[in-house]
Amino acid sequence: MSEADRPGRIGRAMSEASLTGWEAIVLTPSPDMDHLVGHAPRPTERPTLLVLRPDAGPVLIVPALERPLADGSPAGSLAELRAWRDGEDPFALAADALAGASRIAVGDRAWAAHLLALQAALPQASFGSAGPVMARVRSVKEATELDALRRAAAAADATFADVVGLRFEGRTELDVAEDLARLLVQHGHLRADFTIVGAGPNGASPHHEPGEHVIAAGDAVVLDFGGELDGYYSDTTRTVAVGSPPDGFDEAYDLVHRAQQAAFESVRPGVPAEDVDRAAREEIVAGGFGDAFVHRTGHGIGLEVHEAPYVVAGNTDPLEPGMTFSIEPGVYLPGRFGIRIEDIVEVTTGGAERLNRSTRDLQVVV
Amino acid sequence: MSEADRPGRIGRAMSEASLTGWEAIVLTPSPDMDHLVGHAPRPTERPTLLVLRPDAGPVLIVPALERPLADGSPAGSLAELRAWRDGEDPFALAADALAGASRIAVGDRAWAAHLLALQAALPQASFGSAGPVMARVRSVKEATELDALRRAAAAADATFADVVGLRFEGRTELDVAEDLARLLVQHGHLRADFTIVGAGPNGASPHHEPGEHVIAAGDAVVLDFGGELDGYYSDTTRTVAVGSPPDGFDEAYDLVHRAQQAAFESVRPGVPAEDVDRAAREEIVAGGFGDAFVHRTGHGIGLEVHEAPYVVAGNTDPLEPGMTFSIEPGVYLPGRFGIRIEDIVEVTTGGAERLNRSTRDLQVVV
Repeated sequence: MSEADRPGRIGRAMSEASLTGWEAIVLTPSPDMDHLVGHAPRPTERPTLLVLRPDAGPVLIVPALERPLADGSPAGSLAELRAWRDGEDPFALAADALAGASRIAVGDRAWAAHLLALQAALPQASFGSAGPVMARVRSVKEATELDALRRAAAAADATFADVVGLRFEGRTELDVAEDLARLLVQHGHLRADFTIVGAGPNGASPHHEPGEHVIAAGDAVVLDFGGELDGYYSDTTRTVAVGSPPDGFDEAYDLVHRAQQAAFESVRPGVPAEDVDRAAREEIVAGGFGDAFVHRTGHGIGLEVHEAPYVVAGNTDPLEPGMTFSIEPGVYLPGRFGIRIEDIVEVTTGGAERLNRSTRDLQVVV
Repeated sequence: MSEADRPGRIGRAMSEASLTGWEAIVLTPSPDMDHLVGHAPRPTERPTLLVLRPDAGPVLIVPALERPLADGSPAGSLAELRAWRDGEDPFALAADALAGASRIAVGDRAWAAHLLALQAALPQASFGSAGPVMARVRSVKEATELDALRRAAAAADATFADVVGLRFEGRTELDVAEDLARLLVQHGHLRADFTIVGAGPNGASPHHEPGEHVIAAGDAVVLDFGGELDGYYSDTTRTVAVGSPPDGFDEAYDLVHRAQQAAFESVRPGVPAEDVDRAAREEIVAGGFGDAFVHRTGHGIGLEVHEAPYVVAGNTDPLEPGMTFSIEPGVYLPGRFGIRIEDIVEVTTGGAERLNRSTRDLQVVV
């Protein structure tokens, strides 16, 4: 991979922050911090605080015992490191680095304990979410990021191609989930991150946790799986039928399939993100299942499985070429079955391209 | 395992909150929430908010698509569930459940984005950390929790016993880290959570990430590893020598060994947590290595690897029987080597008991 242009990213973050009136950004260990300065320790109770201001170089406040890690990361040359020892007050260091700033944006994933301590250390300042600023930096992907997302999607597709060849009937959801996890790694993922297997009525719980439920002939099975590959995520869903699907399934499947296609066809630069949600939702409402589509149509994907842009009513942000997100309408009928079809798509200059290529036609398994 | 007394835990949380003047507690997905109501979804951008008030039953605000999960968990019978759909405002539901509360404690691990939204929805209220309240609920372990911590510690000890029989010289840190992860699972852990292997100069970085560095004869190697077993964590450290240790190592090892013992002997009910830190630190300062002991002496352990009580200067909270924490003094000499010895201990009525039983005498490996 080519070297990331981290100074460029930091510069964009500061420009976006200034445009929206922020005088400083504070990030804690998170994909945001990793993206800007390449330091990614585990978030813990010990604060690590990256302070960005337009009129000064980046300052990284680190626990003394992680100073060697920070020094050895790209952050070692990008930021001025200031270490604190257990028993000392890292928020006093932060207040010093933030002196004079009255409007401060804090990373969305910072722990509440740390935000509260920052607020107490800087009682005159007002605080807000750095989420929109970081979304402006991260949601349009760089070429190497798109490449990683493509490889992750291809590995997820290969996983699906393999799993439909395995036996479903008579095995537990957990067994199939373990197959998915194994196959994701076998096809190049660093690790599986989630493997939802919802058979029969369990498919009607969109975030069902696979368990000892035994899959039976006639079940519809929702398979929603993904993982990390070179720092970027895959996330795809297909719904398969074990033999003959249950009554009413085929019509509902066709509806979700059409809704997914309608949403895909609505994607092009300049379109508000919520219009993609509306495109899917109108199909499903027209088909009489509006109440059964209990979630948004999609979410951005990149360094996080869920990130901006969210494809949801109320998000009027316009799509731009290079944005990547899921399109995953679903219909959930309690006590009966669930259906979801999910692809990752990239916004292109002319419209959109699917990164997932698995067939969306119903696959029948044994 | 016996059924957890979750209503009792919720009652204790409310009592502790009232004692410190909080009118409500708000928790998001975290060990805190899991401990009180048995619902443990993955923390995401979609808020799940548990609202506890002394004058009303628990309210759990959940994303609609995770309502089936919440319903099927203990929370389904312990709390009133209120679901919100994507595009709706969960913080309006929270503001409603929190109406009239002017002092609100928020879980330490809540995301900043969610705390900021709560603050915006309730501009008249003041917010603080629920950490001290939840520490009062969680730091003295129940019998089944102590049992799980004992089994986790025994499994970590068995891992150490096995790993010292393996070859070190000529293999990479990563290879040994993978052995540790495999052995932790083989001895009963659900998964390995961390496997620090710091050989030679890398041992001087307390949170070193094991890499392709090849371990050589004469290296001291810091092994710090642990994982999850029945929901509770192990965490132990031993430092071994590959053949003859480097110059100056033996004296420093004996010093850390004595400091660890001194800290252990200082533990008994009523002693302020910081006194245990002081006991270890005084030994190391007296030995001339005070500047090289760059971290606190320990941390509580339970549902989290790091939790209250923190064994650190400034923590005057008195120890109580049933508290569990690490004692892990260390000495780090940049460019040369590091040494750390860590056991999990339980405060007993008469003093303390080590949950880890691995020998603290230097083990020489090949």
